[in-house]
Amino acid sequence: MDNIPNAGEMRKTDGESSSAKVTFSIDKTKNFPDWYDRALNIGDMVDARYPVKGMYIWRPYGFKALRRMMGIMHEIMERTGHEEVYFPMLIPASIFGKERDFLKGFKGEAFVVTRAGTETLGEELFVRPTSETGMYESIKPWVRSISDLPLKIYQVVNIFRHETKQTRPMLRLREVVQFKEAHTFHATAEEADAQVQEGVAAYKEFFDRLLLPYLVVETPSWDTFAGAVYNMDLMSVMPDGKAIELGSVINLGDKFARAFGITYQANDNKQAYVHQTCYGISERELGVMLAIHGDNNGLIIPPEIAPIQVVVIPIFHKGKEETMKKGAEKVKQILVEQGFRTAMDIRDRGVGDKYYEWEARGVPVRIELGPKELESGKLILFRRDTRKKETVDAAKAPKRINELLVDITDTLRARAQEYFKGRVFHFKSVSDLKKNYKEREGMIGLPWCGDEKCGRKLEEDIGIPTVGFVHDKHLSEPCASCGKTKDMVEMFFGRTY
Amino acid sequence: MDNIPNAGEMRKTDGESSSAKVTFSIDKTKNFPDWYDRALNIGDMVDARYPVKGMYIWRPYGFKALRRMMGIMHEIMERTGHEEVYFPMLIPASIFGKERDFLKGFKGEAFVVTRAGTETLGEELFVRPTSETGMYESIKPWVRSISDLPLKIYQVVNIFRHETKQTRPMLRLREVVQFKEAHTFHATAEEADAQVQEGVAAYKEFFDRLLLPYLVVETPSWDTFAGAVYNMDLMSVMPDGKAIELGSVINLGDKFARAFGITYQANDNKQAYVHQTCYGISERELGVMLAIHGDNNGLIIPPEIAPIQVVVIPIFHKGKEETMKKGAEKVKQILVEQGFRTAMDIRDRGVGDKYYEWEARGVPVRIELGPKELESGKLILFRRDTRKKETVDAAKAPKRINELLVDITDTLRARAQEYFKGRVFHFKSVSDLKKNYKEREGMIGLPWCGDEKCGRKLEEDIGIPTVGFVHDKHLSEPCASCGKTKDMVEMFFGRTY
Repeated sequence: MDNIPNAGEMRKTDGESSSAKVTFSIDKTKNFPDWYDRALNIGDMVDARYPVKGMYIWRPYGFKALRRMMGIMHEIMERTGHEEVYFPMLIPASIFGKERDFLKGFKGEAFVVTRAGTETLGEELFVRPTSETGMYESIKPWVRSISDLPLKIYQVVNIFRHETKQTRPMLRLREVVQFKEAHTFHATAEEADAQVQEGVAAYKEFFDRLLLPYLVVETPSWDTFAGAVYNMDLMSVMPDGKAIELGSVINLGDKFARAFGITYQANDNKQAYVHQTCYGISERELGVMLAIHGDNNGLIIPPEIAPIQVVVIPIFHKGKEETMKKGAEKVKQILVEQGFRTAMDIRDRGVGDKYYEWEARGVPVRIELGPKELESGKLILFRRDTRKKETVDAAKAPKRINELLVDITDTLRARAQEYFKGRVFHFKSVSDLKKNYKEREGMIGLPWCGDEKCGRKLEEDIGIPTVGFVHDKHLSEPCASCGKTKDMVEMFFGRTY
Repeated sequence: MDNIPNAGEMRKTDGESSSAKVTFSIDKTKNFPDWYDRALNIGDMVDARYPVKGMYIWRPYGFKALRRMMGIMHEIMERTGHEEVYFPMLIPASIFGKERDFLKGFKGEAFVVTRAGTETLGEELFVRPTSETGMYESIKPWVRSISDLPLKIYQVVNIFRHETKQTRPMLRLREVVQFKEAHTFHATAEEADAQVQEGVAAYKEFFDRLLLPYLVVETPSWDTFAGAVYNMDLMSVMPDGKAIELGSVINLGDKFARAFGITYQANDNKQAYVHQTCYGISERELGVMLAIHGDNNGLIIPPEIAPIQVVVIPIFHKGKEETMKKGAEKVKQILVEQGFRTAMDIRDRGVGDKYYEWEARGVPVRIELGPKELESGKLILFRRDTRKKETVDAAKAPKRINELLVDITDTLRARAQEYFKGRVFHFKSVSDLKKNYKEREGMIGLPWCGDEKCGRKLEEDIGIPTVGFVHDKHLSEPCASCGKTKDMVEMFFGRTY
């Protein structure tokens, strides 16, 4: 775990109110949508009052968490040989429409610039909903001979989609603020297939570091990304039982290469089309992370991501304010020097309110320092995940805090795995499902023969759409639709975000 | 100087051609526009072939340089108490038009989204040309009492302006990819004034680290930012003699606060308007840095910014390729361990071409390693700024390279200062100017009494617009327009980017 000193005294931390005592009292499992909105607000992540639907303001504390999360992604991308680039946001209509399936999939939800100043544009400009078209049009000269391949690039950009469903901070947006999209170009179909696996592995590492549980599925042919040959999705489940796509790794084959004319000179001196993949993640993953780890007291942020890992709160007694402040400052200083991201709260406010606020913000460890502790060289440590307190010698605090951060990480990971296990159901047949699946919501697996007709029939029978099938695990049960027994895989169904 | 190991072997580095021998041969001073375009292209910074005017693609090497430059800005912002946020890109028309001067200044150049999918929007959305309006509309609840002030935030975002002048990578854009804009909110006018000084100091530090020369001027009242009370600009001069704004620090007074109703509860329990400042820089500063430091062999990147500080080039002799590769790999490994950002070029290409390319990319130090050097434990070091070579013992190379990087930094700084001195002219009167200012272009100073009429008359007389006046240095010469002698300051004039 890296411990970069970062936050100083946090002065403006209240997303909601600067004086009123705040209370939480929403049950995460029973009323997840309200819990989520409130947890993100009281937890100082986003401000949801921007006057355009689906566009949100990032508060300083939230943006720090997002930056830390994206820092991990940058690290993984660079380590696996992807180079960062930037392609323009606005895409001319003629280019946006070059790949037919892509156009069909995205034209209904793209924002369009038609005017600049008072001038109507000669050609409309599409605001990227994702960057395939603008990028693939321009990248042709980067790929000339086989020595230019594989080409692996990525960018972190804002993208826009005119969502008609209910929007929600980080999860469903009209402006995605940080969309990390990787695009790769290969000489052969086999290399593109292998790259899909590399992309999945990169995302697994990423979600593992966010302590997120997931299932890797392949999307059925009738539900792939617009313009894809196939895609692998990493799926998780939200506390309301709905499935959510954490990341998608897409094999584009040579479809876009043919539409945009991306070729290279192969060894036989002929021009050959490249084979492509692309894969993306966004701030959505921070939202899922906060949703899964949080509890009825608000957010719980994993120590690696937490903008503030430790907050020092001196307990003021009349006449001793200055002594307590100095004592707290000293504790903070030592922790900062040891590399912990540490804040101190010396605002003129009740200590109960402060505890409440810092818990809602999900800071992993709180230090309480009263006159008694100061006198006896002790500190009280409160860990956010279990909400348990312990008293330690001040001198031993750094070592103990480090142990706590490791233990909180392990606890959050184990809890999330346990939670996920309870949200993924395996049934043998539709009747088995109908008998045993009541109000518990999550992802539901059924044996499937691989036939599209059977897949679509099962969707109809149970009234729940497919999520994707597990690619490499074969089942012995017969297909829940046709009863066939050869090459059975498990198809998952779920309501999705 | 921090030396973060970063680049590995650089495989795809050619912005222009993957096989043709490239030649430079453009004189930077005589034909600066062509030099600039070519230097950025051969130097692998941007790809200028995107099919929309004023929007450019960032190549991996260029984007690394931009990231390093912006990393310095982030560091300065955080250290000076600014917190990073994000406000949405699209601004409803009714909000965009709330401050009259701002609307007048920006409505002619803003891109406008009028449609989403097939649906015409009920209210048009302006693509931010800068974020004042969208931000100030939403920030009201962040400022309630005096304890919320000062509020100092910043964001790094893409902005869009429909430039009608000739566009040029980094310098004049329709999409500015990384616009760093800071916004501050204060209780009093005095505090806002002081913040302007803090902003100027932050930018001075930033430009000093880019080794850029500048002059701090105050913009005359008839040429301020739309909606400003006054602004301080940091101005430099490009190799073609045109002045260029490196950064602008703006005092907004309470004009926007009144337009958007941003008030706080003052100590007397009354609502008072906040006083605001804002200041911005962008990738333009990277463009200026490359323009000023480069020479007729291409880019020269200051060591602190350079994505690659050292490139190791083994000289292949027939039959010894593998030995040379291994030797070079060992040298690279040692340098990476020592913290130098090091690349190695083992491509199958002539060594002359390689030298040429890495010089054009502005890598500060090149290591040449031939069989003779390998045998005798020596290395040849080539420094990009003076293009001088020296031979060192391999064991002493890291220490010597560190000295070279420091010396290159000092040399570039001194050169840039010397260059700037030759580009800023001081004249006593219009006739003095007309006699002595011929074809040499740059910024021209004249004594000015502070009267708008005199300023405008001088612009007419010499046919060159004002750039701004030096704020705190008083002159003894009489006003070049009216002859008044009291409170003279120096007003600068220049053609600008």
